[in-house]
Amino acid sequence: MRNDVNRQVLLKARPTGIPQAEHFEIVERPLPAPGDGQVLVRNLYLSVEPAMRGWVSAVANYAEPVPLGGVMRSIAAGRIVESRHPDWKAGDLVVGMFGWQDYAAVDPAAIQTRVTDGTVPLSAWLGVLGINGLTAYFGLLDAGQPKAGETVVVSTAAGSVGSCVGQIAAIKGCRTVGIAGGSTKVALCRDVFGYDAAIDYRRGDLDAALAAACPNGVDVYFDNTAGAISDAVLKRLNVGARVVICGTASIASWDPVPLGPRVERHLLVKRARMQGILIFDYAARYEEGRAELARWVREGRLRYREDILEGIDKAPDAIAGLYRGENLGKRLIRIADAP
Amino acid sequence: MRNDVNRQVLLKARPTGIPQAEHFEIVERPLPAPGDGQVLVRNLYLSVEPAMRGWVSAVANYAEPVPLGGVMRSIAAGRIVESRHPDWKAGDLVVGMFGWQDYAAVDPAAIQTRVTDGTVPLSAWLGVLGINGLTAYFGLLDAGQPKAGETVVVSTAAGSVGSCVGQIAAIKGCRTVGIAGGSTKVALCRDVFGYDAAIDYRRGDLDAALAAACPNGVDVYFDNTAGAISDAVLKRLNVGARVVICGTASIASWDPVPLGPRVERHLLVKRARMQGILIFDYAARYEEGRAELARWVREGRLRYREDILEGIDKAPDAIAGLYRGENLGKRLIRIADAP
Repeated sequence: MRNDVNRQVLLKARPTGIPQAEHFEIVERPLPAPGDGQVLVRNLYLSVEPAMRGWVSAVANYAEPVPLGGVMRSIAAGRIVESRHPDWKAGDLVVGMFGWQDYAAVDPAAIQTRVTDGTVPLSAWLGVLGINGLTAYFGLLDAGQPKAGETVVVSTAAGSVGSCVGQIAAIKGCRTVGIAGGSTKVALCRDVFGYDAAIDYRRGDLDAALAAACPNGVDVYFDNTAGAISDAVLKRLNVGARVVICGTASIASWDPVPLGPRVERHLLVKRARMQGILIFDYAARYEEGRAELARWVREGRLRYREDILEGIDKAPDAIAGLYRGENLGKRLIRIADAP
Repeated sequence: MRNDVNRQVLLKARPTGIPQAEHFEIVERPLPAPGDGQVLVRNLYLSVEPAMRGWVSAVANYAEPVPLGGVMRSIAAGRIVESRHPDWKAGDLVVGMFGWQDYAAVDPAAIQTRVTDGTVPLSAWLGVLGINGLTAYFGLLDAGQPKAGETVVVSTAAGSVGSCVGQIAAIKGCRTVGIAGGSTKVALCRDVFGYDAAIDYRRGDLDAALAAACPNGVDVYFDNTAGAISDAVLKRLNVGARVVICGTASIASWDPVPLGPRVERHLLVKRARMQGILIFDYAARYEEGRAELARWVREGRLRYREDILEGIDKAPDAIAGLYRGENLGKRLIRIADAP
């Protein structure tokens, strides 16, 4: 499986909005050699995340921006092909911050997870058992605090985070309402992810559809979009509602900050809470979350979809494609045969 | 002290924005007679609150709107002059929802507090020991959760709530930054209420003033205004910041909802929280809060100012005056000689 060249996807230009194919370039470089204490990882799956828009933005964020000319930051799943560290050996399957490239020579600190549970496919470690599933798990349960019988509304409800949120809320006994764009995703929400109600925000009157789907109001809103969808949901908050801000997919650019209806009165009158979450803050509890998620996957209570692109050549346009809404599951790029 | 007539301030017309004098009328009615189990209260001080705007609004709120033609809802402090209930006797000093009127015949359920602590003046029971002080106490400590060494920013910092917030934050070891309008209030912030820094939002560049006053960013923002002041503060939130939404004094009307910069990205990137609070949710803990507040008042660590209007004729214009910013302390109306 080892080749002589390392193809890398570099950030060529800094986008102001959604990163497009033209902001990246693919180069061929010599295979890196692991230094003392390092390992060489052969990447098998590269992850594609909405959050990558933030990682390449020059605007202040939770991480340093990817430098121009640098390898695009990414979580990836791969196999160690050479180890110069006593805790790791060739053949180990690992998930970590290995970047959009064939090979990464890294310190073990870059490894997030040693893949030990063979009952779930490797690709799932980048999705339902990775930051998508963990974001849903901790965002919903820790920040959203749903209680049985409450109504939980999710935007981008068929997405890799949203679909987990809806299913975990259902496992916790909540009424679940998914909002998605287009009839295919709405059908996924109903038929695969088991939402009690699913709304196509592109069709007709979102206010009326929410009123019908949430006869008892909204107790938890898991917000992946911001924008007009959120504006409609916030009108229906119940007293004591919790809004989990997880993403802002509907906002094309934050420079300048777009205007929207002010939220203070909703929050005041309803004594509601809006809270931004970042999964990396929960790193100390990943194992707890992953164990629960894996159990639900094995029990058939947590279903997931994948959208797997073939070959690293697909990487430059892959983020833009997410924002075009063309994927129907967690987007990955397979760059070598996986186990 | 008992007269033959009961002057009442009635809601004559429903305002869409700030209630003005023309929305009220003063009438003279016969003295009410307490029914069996009721008490007759002679009001001494009537309270004037920014929240009264909400109480007369037809827009959904946390309480039923005051009906047209009804006595204006108000907290008041008074003396029981006749009791037909075994737990209460003539002469008792009480605080409760007695309305803008000379006399109220009420069930004991309308009484919020029996005034027993003579070490603090009766009027203070409507301010620093009343919902203003309690709002500051629970809003800051429960929702804001300030930690020693953190920076706490307060809007309407010289007001009856804000001034308590700043002083309680200082007691808890925080750096305190007050925002107020005009040099008189800014001087009050610095010289009476002890803020570490005070900013006049009407002068010059609020962004630059906040940057200078908050060199380590903002950990807690106690928001009494919404609007442009909040927009400037939110840009400076630290990771994990807490925003307590207590009032929206700078917003003249919520119908239609005014536009402002969207907050989702601030909350997401900073993993920050915005939370609306309503003091009535803390009713079960009032005694705890009042005991602490009274102790700090007696120790000279919690100072307060009052703006006392004389006579019930001042009531109709009193709310509008608050929103004109003409008071320099908790606004009250004295309608009879107090002890």
